[in-house]
Amino acid sequence: MKSPKELRKLIRNEIIQTQTAGLAPRFVQTNLVILPQENAFDFLLFCNRNSKPCPLIEVLETGSTEPVLSAPKSDIRFDVPKYRIYENGKLVDEPTNIEKYWRKDFVSFLLGCSYTFEEALIDAEIQVRHLQEDKTVPMFFTSIQTKKSGIFDGPLVVTMRPIHKSKIVKTIQVTSRFPNVHGAPIHIGNPDEIGIKNILKPDLGDAVTIHEDEIPVFWACGVTPQLVALNSKPPLMITHYPGHMFITDIKNETISVL
Amino acid sequence: MKSPKELRKLIRNEIIQTQTAGLAPRFVQTNLVILPQENAFDFLLFCNRNSKPCPLIEVLETGSTEPVLSAPKSDIRFDVPKYRIYENGKLVDEPTNIEKYWRKDFVSFLLGCSYTFEEALIDAEIQVRHLQEDKTVPMFFTSIQTKKSGIFDGPLVVTMRPIHKSKIVKTIQVTSRFPNVHGAPIHIGNPDEIGIKNILKPDLGDAVTIHEDEIPVFWACGVTPQLVALNSKPPLMITHYPGHMFITDIKNETISVL
Repeated sequence: MKSPKELRKLIRNEIIQTQTAGLAPRFVQTNLVILPQENAFDFLLFCNRNSKPCPLIEVLETGSTEPVLSAPKSDIRFDVPKYRIYENGKLVDEPTNIEKYWRKDFVSFLLGCSYTFEEALIDAEIQVRHLQEDKTVPMFFTSIQTKKSGIFDGPLVVTMRPIHKSKIVKTIQVTSRFPNVHGAPIHIGNPDEIGIKNILKPDLGDAVTIHEDEIPVFWACGVTPQLVALNSKPPLMITHYPGHMFITDIKNETISVL
Repeated sequence: MKSPKELRKLIRNEIIQTQTAGLAPRFVQTNLVILPQENAFDFLLFCNRNSKPCPLIEVLETGSTEPVLSAPKSDIRFDVPKYRIYENGKLVDEPTNIEKYWRKDFVSFLLGCSYTFEEALIDAEIQVRHLQEDKTVPMFFTSIQTKKSGIFDGPLVVTMRPIHKSKIVKTIQVTSRFPNVHGAPIHIGNPDEIGIKNILKPDLGDAVTIHEDEIPVFWACGVTPQLVALNSKPPLMITHYPGHMFITDIKNETISVL
């Protein structure tokens, strides 16, 4: 099993350009959002006000390329397998590094992702359907509004995992231990109550099988801040390419609260 | 028992000018830090990097005087019993409202305080010594450094509560449920290991009795961000007067993670 450091080196040298799910399984992987300083305070505040979809693992100093707290010696410009560049809310490029886009006024945000709590669920012998079916987790836009900050505003996006009735309590207990990676579910049961019309037609990702004894359980999703940021059309925004996360040196278990 | 709203009205009209400990006991009370916009991003980042001493309950939009999320219709300029005004790190005034100091570029930070987890400890039949002895909680400067952000840097300040040996596990469990108000202890036992020379001579607050079967337990303290901010000598900073907190409409139990 390769260490996060070794994996980041392979990514930096463009030997790994794939999804990062399953790589360094015991370590925290993060979503990435990079914004110019002029939008950074409002976005940081947005993350604080909406910590369930936007759990901050690390925010880099203005202009810094090294996540000194979560991955010392790494470089945020090279160590993600694939990026997305948005100008005024429009996707303009999907490069494997962002050297030529880098600016001294950039602030980089690393946001926790669900890989951490999914590992905890599996450890607790709770099935994670989309992993079993080798699919992308189903994601839905909801009727729940995030708490606005400056230009950043928009609906909450959720992921859905079908959970057996007998495992609902354990699922809540296990995921509650990890507030820094979306934590406890935000809704259990009837999708209609949070504005989801058809549970078999996700807005993003793939549909998954829901068995008769299972209840759909919904978690705040790390895609929320990206969609919210895009809705607000900042002049420039850089993110990771979906599924192509930043791998940190932080062990999953070290960020639990209990 | 008066509601938070009623209490804030009495405070606004300067009928209550005392400490707020014990008022509206089931509701979250907060520390207050107000800084000009030019220092706000660095301070917000400092709070994120040091969430144990600086748990953010709410950050107001630039220039806003109303904590819309935690106490709608309140006014941060009037609804704290007593304030402290610091210029270049020096205390210059202790007014009962800050109307004449208010500026449109001010950002107000509400930070969780230990009253919430102390209530949870008492509910779990764990003695809180300084409350029993009617004293201010003992506080100590430690050899532990906070994680720097911009100009904000300095040592972690901790509070100490002596806990009976048989209650240590329960104490950790109970306080771990409240990461937004300092949460789990940061150290248990030997004070020397975190740079505290004499457990009976706190740097701030009062000494309390430690019985033979008790172990000193240390929590990150909400005084940390104030001292750190003062060390960095921002041109202007406003805080609450110690013990004279802002009373929110948030019930303590609603901010637990489990």
